[in-house]
Amino acid sequence: MDNVNLKKLAKELNLAISTVSRALRDSHEISQETKDRVKALAEKLGFQPNPHASSLRQSKSKTIAVVIPEIQNNFFAQIMNGVEDVAQQKGYHVLIYLTHEDYKREKGILDLLRNGRVDGLMISVSNTTDNFEHLQAYCKAGIPFVFFDRVGELMEAPQIMTDDAEASCKATDHLLKAGCKRIAFLSLSGNLSISIRRQSGYKKALAKYGLGQHELIVECGPEDESNRQKIRELLESNKPPDGIFAAIEKFAVNTYEVCHALKIKIPEKLKVISYSNMAAVALFDPPLSTIVQPAYEMGKQAADTLFKIIEKKSLLPAEKKIVIPSCIKERRSTRG
Amino acid sequence: MDNVNLKKLAKELNLAISTVSRALRDSHEISQETKDRVKALAEKLGFQPNPHASSLRQSKSKTIAVVIPEIQNNFFAQIMNGVEDVAQQKGYHVLIYLTHEDYKREKGILDLLRNGRVDGLMISVSNTTDNFEHLQAYCKAGIPFVFFDRVGELMEAPQIMTDDAEASCKATDHLLKAGCKRIAFLSLSGNLSISIRRQSGYKKALAKYGLGQHELIVECGPEDESNRQKIRELLESNKPPDGIFAAIEKFAVNTYEVCHALKIKIPEKLKVISYSNMAAVALFDPPLSTIVQPAYEMGKQAADTLFKIIEKKSLLPAEKKIVIPSCIKERRSTRG
Repeated sequence: MDNVNLKKLAKELNLAISTVSRALRDSHEISQETKDRVKALAEKLGFQPNPHASSLRQSKSKTIAVVIPEIQNNFFAQIMNGVEDVAQQKGYHVLIYLTHEDYKREKGILDLLRNGRVDGLMISVSNTTDNFEHLQAYCKAGIPFVFFDRVGELMEAPQIMTDDAEASCKATDHLLKAGCKRIAFLSLSGNLSISIRRQSGYKKALAKYGLGQHELIVECGPEDESNRQKIRELLESNKPPDGIFAAIEKFAVNTYEVCHALKIKIPEKLKVISYSNMAAVALFDPPLSTIVQPAYEMGKQAADTLFKIIEKKSLLPAEKKIVIPSCIKERRSTRG
Repeated sequence: MDNVNLKKLAKELNLAISTVSRALRDSHEISQETKDRVKALAEKLGFQPNPHASSLRQSKSKTIAVVIPEIQNNFFAQIMNGVEDVAQQKGYHVLIYLTHEDYKREKGILDLLRNGRVDGLMISVSNTTDNFEHLQAYCKAGIPFVFFDRVGELMEAPQIMTDDAEASCKATDHLLKAGCKRIAFLSLSGNLSISIRRQSGYKKALAKYGLGQHELIVECGPEDESNRQKIRELLESNKPPDGIFAAIEKFAVNTYEVCHALKIKIPEKLKVISYSNMAAVALFDPPLSTIVQPAYEMGKQAADTLFKIIEKKSLLPAEKKIVIPSCIKERRSTRG
């Protein structure tokens, strides 16, 4: 909305221009009654708010923040490419904060960002985050806010995610169809939403095949040597698995390392599939079958949603929870 | 230096406390004459400036920025780990800006950061940056500033780098000793300092063996398909190389892809070595020999240097240019 129109509205209503402007932006400083009066007249006179101009006036920093657990992972790098393509179009800078999977760092960053340093924030929560008070405080401060991938499922803020449960069910199904009878799931520890969904997909597929009693879940973590030790024990046990489903790429790398050391042939003795967005897995010995997440699209969608909020556009219910499917890329490591 | 001491100095010199404080911090606002008087008395009375307290008073944001070209690369991810370990100890937040190898974005970010949003900045310049005016303007603004890896060699700011020329010479030497007679160098385009140094190391090793006339430099870029096309033509030419030295990991991945497609055996027909900090290259078919850069150490050193400047400690000449050696990790792809 240009200044002339704001002026006209203000004069007609006998209000200050800034009051009209804030009423149209749904500011908490303006009473509901005044907002209703302003909006009614705006509608009557056929004013079209110009969200871009409006955003320009409100914007303090022309910067959005992305808070992610780590960057040694192609998934988050691809997410960032999606985010930056949208932000650049909007003329925004993007800054990245790393939590290193540490709840305290995450809280510190969120507290820091409440001072108006950025116009909006996207977050994928750390795997040690088990309460969301710092996020709720952030929302209360009225700063635009979107979850992606690792979401706070019970929170109001929009959530952009992939179909972890369905994709994990399909991956397990793929191993079963390739002939596996005993599939181990290398799980992330912690209470992450994605971790729980991936595990549930694995369990669902086993149940479908009547193999519910053969669940074999091994919790792995950030330490390579500890993971390799667990995988070695698993493969040298008297009932070793004939299939491994790794919840993250790192655990598949650890599995390959152990198999190379123990001379266990993939896929003949053991089939392996993993979540991974790294192109170079096609060069592994043997090439690794993967579940590929729509990282670029998720980043783009999360940024689109965030800018809608920044520009005070209203979100449809369907825009508050967007699920973009992952796909399975079959390679030699699961050949039957 | 605590307040009592500042007060005492100020009284003795008949100056304001803030003037004394700024003189001790070498502020541009204070005349050289006054600085000399203040420092002389401070020394005479045996005052030890406390850099930590001093930094706390000056600090506006408790934040440093790291400007890097991209994050789809383990090298920069490991750099960040080194930086963050130091910053966390100092109680600082770190924010990351990506230039996507785009000079204009880099300039935009530097201009944005001149407004005091951060207490200091580390940068690895983009490969399209061919003038350094935006960096000089930043330095003039008096904000602490350090280069790492991709440096502005002619600039005053401290530079933390690795021994690209020497490491490249050793890598080429390694290929020659493994029996290669004709080695192609897959080079980054552009005027990057690291690109020039890597190429010079390759040339130096060939010259040492009297093979100067056999230089074979192929410029590759960000597009996989275009790189594969160039490598395919190279390997299908009537004088194909028997060794490839890739300046970055991406070009080695492209080389492997072409070799797999053309069924060219590595290392029997072609030996390959590459700069890479990715652990998973050990799982490649065959495992890839690499030049490993001291990324974590470079990040740590760059952050240490930046905090010295932020804390107004003076740098020794040797601290203004720090070179940390890379090392060669031999694997099956270069076996003789």
